[in-house]
Amino acid sequence: MSASVKLTLDEVHSLSIEVLSHAGFGQAHAQAIANMLYTCQLDDCQSHGLFRLFMCIETIKAGKIDPQILPTVHETEASIIHADARGGMSLLAIDSAMPKLIEKTRKHGIAALAVNHCFHFSALWPEVERLSRAGLAAMAMVPSHSWVAPAGGMRGSLGTNPLAFSWPRSGQDPFTFDFATSAFARGEIELYRRAGKALPEGVAIDQHGQPTTDAQAALDGAMLTFGGYKGSALSIMIELLAGPLIDDMTSLESMEFAAGAGGAPHHGEIILAFDPNLFSGGKVTENHHRAERLFADILEQGARLPSQRRYAARARNLERGYVEIPQQLHADLLKLTGP
Amino acid sequence: MSASVKLTLDEVHSLSIEVLSHAGFGQAHAQAIANMLYTCQLDDCQSHGLFRLFMCIETIKAGKIDPQILPTVHETEASIIHADARGGMSLLAIDSAMPKLIEKTRKHGIAALAVNHCFHFSALWPEVERLSRAGLAAMAMVPSHSWVAPAGGMRGSLGTNPLAFSWPRSGQDPFTFDFATSAFARGEIELYRRAGKALPEGVAIDQHGQPTTDAQAALDGAMLTFGGYKGSALSIMIELLAGPLIDDMTSLESMEFAAGAGGAPHHGEIILAFDPNLFSGGKVTENHHRAERLFADILEQGARLPSQRRYAARARNLERGYVEIPQQLHADLLKLTGP
Repeated sequence: MSASVKLTLDEVHSLSIEVLSHAGFGQAHAQAIANMLYTCQLDDCQSHGLFRLFMCIETIKAGKIDPQILPTVHETEASIIHADARGGMSLLAIDSAMPKLIEKTRKHGIAALAVNHCFHFSALWPEVERLSRAGLAAMAMVPSHSWVAPAGGMRGSLGTNPLAFSWPRSGQDPFTFDFATSAFARGEIELYRRAGKALPEGVAIDQHGQPTTDAQAALDGAMLTFGGYKGSALSIMIELLAGPLIDDMTSLESMEFAAGAGGAPHHGEIILAFDPNLFSGGKVTENHHRAERLFADILEQGARLPSQRRYAARARNLERGYVEIPQQLHADLLKLTGP
Repeated sequence: MSASVKLTLDEVHSLSIEVLSHAGFGQAHAQAIANMLYTCQLDDCQSHGLFRLFMCIETIKAGKIDPQILPTVHETEASIIHADARGGMSLLAIDSAMPKLIEKTRKHGIAALAVNHCFHFSALWPEVERLSRAGLAAMAMVPSHSWVAPAGGMRGSLGTNPLAFSWPRSGQDPFTFDFATSAFARGEIELYRRAGKALPEGVAIDQHGQPTTDAQAALDGAMLTFGGYKGSALSIMIELLAGPLIDDMTSLESMEFAAGAGGAPHHGEIILAFDPNLFSGGKVTENHHRAERLFADILEQGARLPSQRRYAARARNLERGYVEIPQQLHADLLKLTGP
């Protein structure tokens, strides 16, 4: 096991702010991004925690983001909140629009937040979990870059297109999941390549459209969706709802826009929110019991609920007041705080 | 190949009406059900066409449905239409509420139809396709009976829980899919059992929670979801949105309610509709081009779009004016039109 260092929860936040500010992000953006990284790191979600600071910096280096620009939020009589990130990072736009989304959902029972023109690097579960903490159910979707082949295809057309969902539970952490519709995370394939390990069957094709377990061939070819033609259909749905529906890019367009530059992809995001109170005609308590009975039935047979491991890590880390991150990561991040 | 008979399109409809009326369905229900069976049969969707008349009759025999009762539709200031089937078949309730759902969606940009207290036997794609014919995107979900184990589980907790989605395409049939979140259709396992054939790996477990390829053991045990823990998470989402969110039963409760009686399960359904015009700020044309470019990219590489086969069958059957169904099915149905 590689060496790790302990960071207090405050240090997780302040280290992020330092790195982000030094890289050029405006104060409001640095705060929004640091909050997201803190939230993920607290849950031991290493891939979306402090490690993502590198991607934030790469995004600035790629030269297309405006790290200072402030988002605008536009509300109409409809059940849609429009947040325009104006070429900045997504998180400040979402933070700015969240209170209005909650208010709109409580008024109309169902509402959507369409986020446009944002650079996007973050996990979706913190956003849907936040809505469930406000008593709402929620779904979130984003495209990415066209690294993923459709079922029966030969090359990338679709993004890794995650789907996140959350359901509020009274007196307990929400039921929350967040999964990529690709069979494998792209970062994981990279790790296999570095380790010289063969990929599992069924996660990738080479540049000729043939199945491969070679990580480099997979990176040169395309990833596959999870669950065959069903996962592929779901991924296409996410492209449409988080792209053309909201007047923003598909993963194909986002990849072209990046033109090979590194960093986070640029595209839109859609978040749907549902008010159980208005949907159930005020029968929230009875229906929470229904949902709890389902969760109990799943747990009784030895299966897990999707976020159990994260919530356990969160409880432990909050209790002891620190998180552990790899020593090398910490050393690399410290270098990014100074000149 | 078994013998088949040709039925004109009118005959598909009139035979359905005769069977349904003779079984005791009121005129309005018989029309709504016949329209659905016609729609599926026209697309050569044999499993959800005339064959489903048997399930409609079994549902009456099971003694819990009211085959005459008329649904009520309730609309509020919110973006939700509530249709109460009042213990009747779902389709008339949905037909009655569809115009209001379309109107609400055009006004608010996003709206939901919550259908309660219905018996449900039908495919979801005709409903979402209909919304796309009105220029909207749409998603539909229903629970069923708890035949499906969660990932890592030992027994059934979840329904076969289909998800349907549709996207409007100008001048072309909508992009539409409708898939069960179970790895296999329950009816298919029954066919394997009758044929004495082994199931594929990974679709079912026996009553001890162990993987099985024996169809009878699978029927005594539980089915698995498609796509492992991701498909399982999606299935739980469908339970929550089409059940407790809308004050209706989970698949566990629906199975208990049926208490072993045959016929269609009793539960709710949720349909979400999205207006591309309001979401995109009026930029429907530009964004249709974006979506069409994605579809073209998928087709160019030799992959299919989900409904291609159905649309091809529809065009052929409309052109020639008849459908083909198995002779035995026809003979069995004729017996159900008389005393």
